[in-house]
Amino acid sequence: MLQYKHMTNDCIFCKIISGEIPSAKIYEDEHTFSFLDISPNNIGHSLVLPKKHAENIHDITEEDLAHVMRTVKKMSAAIKKGVEADGINIIMNNGKYAGQVIFHSHTHIIPRFKKDGLQHWQGKHHYKDGEMKDLAEKIQKEIL
Amino acid sequence: MLQYKHMTNDCIFCKIISGEIPSAKIYEDEHTFSFLDISPNNIGHSLVLPKKHAENIHDITEEDLAHVMRTVKKMSAAIKKGVEADGINIIMNNGKYAGQVIFHSHTHIIPRFKKDGLQHWQGKHHYKDGEMKDLAEKIQKEIL
Repeated sequence: MLQYKHMTNDCIFCKIISGEIPSAKIYEDEHTFSFLDISPNNIGHSLVLPKKHAENIHDITEEDLAHVMRTVKKMSAAIKKGVEADGINIIMNNGKYAGQVIFHSHTHIIPRFKKDGLQHWQGKHHYKDGEMKDLAEKIQKEIL
Repeated sequence: MLQYKHMTNDCIFCKIISGEIPSAKIYEDEHTFSFLDISPNNIGHSLVLPKKHAENIHDITEEDLAHVMRTVKKMSAAIKKGVEADGINIIMNNGKYAGQVIFHSHTHIIPRFKKDGLQHWQGKHHYKDGEMKDLAEKIQKEIL
């Protein structure tokens, strides 16, 4: 049953939004949908999706992004209380090489606990003298 | 020189926004400020801040959060082009136990490259039968 008007036939998250695939839904409004991640990093790890299919930060509209973040803010507070978390990581991965697996934009809300052992990205880049200034100018030229 | 009206005296990011502390600024508008992270995970790793001081996802206003994400979207595209990245991670850490170090809300834009070796959070939680349903209901009760 493909009923949601923005659904694309082969998108698992569009099917979760439409209800064709079941999920542990925690919130839904006109523009967004939120459910528990089935493979969580911590208990309560949830996802927030725009209902209108968009792949990533680059093609989601500013309006849908604002809707998503309003829900992320609302659910971050509810999840923090619901699992008595000590902190919250909010993460949006964009692109295969950034760890994105499902190509319907989704924002992770990951509750964190004292000594839960999760680690930050470990890599470090060390700028050479003058590199930051040059790079800042290079990026500024790319702003649309 | 403490000139920015929303500045709090002891906040290093308020001082960067005001210019009291220098930074490799890449973007600024009425509501947001963006600069290269001085201790980057990858080249081009940048931060986006609301100019109005807020500590985290819980106390930032919906409006400022929307402003921040509009800038995150804009700068994600510019940074991706500027450093020819293969993907982008967007991360907001909220609270000491989520890895937040500076308590002026900031969103990380981390360019990613094929085989850069950065790793996701490694922890996993395994739900028992019925635990997801119970948890979803528990979280739903906390939604304000």
